[in-house]
Amino acid sequence: MKTLAVIGTGLIGCSFAAALKAKSPSIKVLGFDANLSQAQAALHAGVIDTIAPDLMTVAQADVLLIAVPVRALPEVLQGIANHLPSTSLVMDVGSTKSDALAHQKLLGNKRGQFVPAHPIAGREKSGAFAAEASLFQGKHVILTPSSETASDKVAQATELWQATGARVLQMSAAEHDQIFAAVSHLPHILAFALVNEFAQRDNANTLFQFAASGFRDFTRIAASSPQMWRDIALNNRDALLDEMKRYQSALTRWIDCVERGDSTQLASMMATSKDHRERWGKGEFEK
Amino acid sequence: MKTLAVIGTGLIGCSFAAALKAKSPSIKVLGFDANLSQAQAALHAGVIDTIAPDLMTVAQADVLLIAVPVRALPEVLQGIANHLPSTSLVMDVGSTKSDALAHQKLLGNKRGQFVPAHPIAGREKSGAFAAEASLFQGKHVILTPSSETASDKVAQATELWQATGARVLQMSAAEHDQIFAAVSHLPHILAFALVNEFAQRDNANTLFQFAASGFRDFTRIAASSPQMWRDIALNNRDALLDEMKRYQSALTRWIDCVERGDSTQLASMMATSKDHRERWGKGEFEK
Repeated sequence: MKTLAVIGTGLIGCSFAAALKAKSPSIKVLGFDANLSQAQAALHAGVIDTIAPDLMTVAQADVLLIAVPVRALPEVLQGIANHLPSTSLVMDVGSTKSDALAHQKLLGNKRGQFVPAHPIAGREKSGAFAAEASLFQGKHVILTPSSETASDKVAQATELWQATGARVLQMSAAEHDQIFAAVSHLPHILAFALVNEFAQRDNANTLFQFAASGFRDFTRIAASSPQMWRDIALNNRDALLDEMKRYQSALTRWIDCVERGDSTQLASMMATSKDHRERWGKGEFEK
Repeated sequence: MKTLAVIGTGLIGCSFAAALKAKSPSIKVLGFDANLSQAQAALHAGVIDTIAPDLMTVAQADVLLIAVPVRALPEVLQGIANHLPSTSLVMDVGSTKSDALAHQKLLGNKRGQFVPAHPIAGREKSGAFAAEASLFQGKHVILTPSSETASDKVAQATELWQATGARVLQMSAAEHDQIFAAVSHLPHILAFALVNEFAQRDNANTLFQFAASGFRDFTRIAASSPQMWRDIALNNRDALLDEMKRYQSALTRWIDCVERGDSTQLASMMATSKDHRERWGKGEFEK
């Protein structure tokens, strides 16, 4: 790879560029962002070498990383489709993968060059200045190729993400979306729902006044981007709805248990949670 | 005050003793714990001066701080009732206050000497060796006296907690329990419920393998003590049930919104959450 194009010069796109440049300083990085000031920030931060004027120009790069909000992916794919060399690799980084895969047809006969990817990494801060070459170090990156994806492109994507320090795995887009609906999308909705519920009340100020450290950690993710999480919720709607309904059934069992005053059952359910959460904290579930 | 008795020599009791001793080194601290090794730990940690052999003995102190699990409070009150001087101050530190107040009758004609207190402070670690004189610095301590509580005892309790660096407030036990059912007890149940739900599944290991930082913070409180939280849930049952049902109704609205694919409404609800959570994080709701 001689040239890398980063489309969407935010935290993820810029961290990917920074990680690869740290390994191979000769790589030329082209940046494009629908918001020009974002691209300028990436240039000032030294993460990209050139701002590309349009998608036609970035389409010429050897590797394209599309790191835009998930709902903007189709537009980008349409913008590059007719200008892609037949050798290039195209990846996205979105949190939902069935929809990404559904859009690969927009690349026409280049669809085999598209490898959907999801790096499980992030920071509180966003934008080019928050980018870090070490962001993906030790983190999972999940690739969800389809039967139409070229195997040499999957191999190339794997190598590139491994070069950033990530642990690369493959699974189907459907399995990915089910897992992340549970472990990521659901907790975000639950945290948003709690803060929103308090905010509606007459005594909202009093509630927030006395909220302490338990509330702080539980709701940290309720300060996440509404645009990003709205898109994730709607793009992974079916899997997320399954999870939300499943959680609501679970909650009904907890309500019944408290209502009955079933001390034994309540302590037992809590002990199961504590045990799993502690083992998770110790890394016992990692492969 | 010449002598302080700490009944239940865990984190809260020992931190209270350490804070007062730091201010007034001449105070003699008696410690009692149903678990002798806990009392010995407090002695070794230098937080208490003497281990009391029984409740009759600790009842002689000028000030008694009962820092036992909430369900053990009645037994302690019964144990000290017939041995209290008419001048002493008795406080508890439990997370539920209507039940604490309901037990004050166990002190018979000394019931006016009992001031229910709830310090909003804690640490990940428990026990005497985790105690810190600064634990209550800047934290809220809520007193919930009844019409039967002696006003000079409330004044004395206020002064003592202020001496630990805490900000002391008064409210009714009912109001306290409603507020903390919402901001503390409910999030604990929700976090316990999520981890428990995952633990039940065939693919539990896979879910825990891919759970990342959002899950980590959301579920930190799901590693809390099952005994302590079972007791809190059952002792504050009515207020907690109200909150759980209210949250479930809110969740139904979120499910409807995702089901309808109502992008505008979803983004708007998330934006309300983000706004409030960020303002909370900046301390805008503090008095």
